Amino acid sequence: MNPADRATTKLDLSFTRVVDVPRPSVWRAWTEPELLMPWFCPLPWKTVDCEIDLRPGGIFRTTMMSPEGTEYPNVGCYLEVLPNAKLVWTNALLPGFRPNAVAQTSGSNDVNFLFTAKVELADHPQGTRYTATVIHADEAGCQKHADMGFEGGWSTALDQLVAMVKKGI
Amino acid sequence: MNPADRATTKLDLSFTRVVDVPRPSVWRAWTEPELLMPWFCPLPWKTVDCEIDLRPGGIFRTTMMSPEGTEYPNVGCYLEVLPNAKLVWTNALLPGFRPNAVAQTSGSNDVNFLFTAKVELADHPQGTRYTATVIHADEAGCQKHADMGFEGGWSTALDQLVAMVKKGI
Repeated sequence: MNPADRATTKLDLSFTRVVDVPRPSVWRAWTEPELLMPWFCPLPWKTVDCEIDLRPGGIFRTTMMSPEGTEYPNVGCYLEVLPNAKLVWTNALLPGFRPNAVAQTSGSNDVNFLFTAKVELADHPQGTRYTATVIHADEAGCQKHADMGFEGGWSTALDQLVAMVKKGI
Repeated sequence: MNPADRATTKLDLSFTRVVDVPRPSVWRAWTEPELLMPWFCPLPWKTVDCEIDLRPGGIFRTTMMSPEGTEYPNVGCYLEVLPNAKLVWTNALLPGFRPNAVAQTSGSNDVNFLFTAKVELADHPQGTRYTATVIHADEAGCQKHADMGFEGGWSTALDQLVAMVKKGI
């Protein structure tokens, strides 16, 4: 591992799993609001609203609700949309690619941090190879995201996605 | 004009001109480092370095030099690349779409501000219809950019571009 790789490791979080559902179903679960809301937050959190404009520069907005009923809105925009293969979005830009003045780097005490997220899907003999990667502006933001339980949270959400797809969508 | 339009007006700067050079030449002047450096800064400022990776997520980096010899590096990434028609980039993201921790909103006292810039080219009987638009995170950043002489600077640079193209590229 060269020094550049080591530096990047401190800024990025990623995991890969193989899931036994078809790629197009995973894609639909990520890109249709009615199919995203049921699985997107690990229970008992819920996703109570979702808006998707599936094109570079288009809005990706969700509202998560805590078990106590507090709502947490999130807004960003898509950067790359390759159907059934790759979806990239960021909270550093608002719809239309406008820089987001609200998002703060983790240098502040705010709980928010800037990130760009990427979901990649590939064919696999058992179904779909699923890779989720989140890249950050700085090590503090990356560490905060790791401490929040990035891999556990995203992996539990993926379990919920798979269960939903198997029930039929 | 509805309230949403008025709000946007305070966040965006834009101008349109018709220039009597062909669209493909303007595109090349914006996308080939050797053709960008001669015109990109209004003289006596100079552009002394330029790196271009012309794809969404690819680097757009320039180094400007003041008449006194101080260098000012700028780095961002492309968001949309439609040859001869539309070029969009931002300094809110680094290459690979990584959020930029260095860039600050204008809420700080830093001279930097976040922006996304768009150059659009269209056919016109006299040559090319050229529209440059810069959108900002907040009104303060937009005002700072206006105070720096956005339209005068970009328009002078465009004059330099046209003069270069007419000499032959």
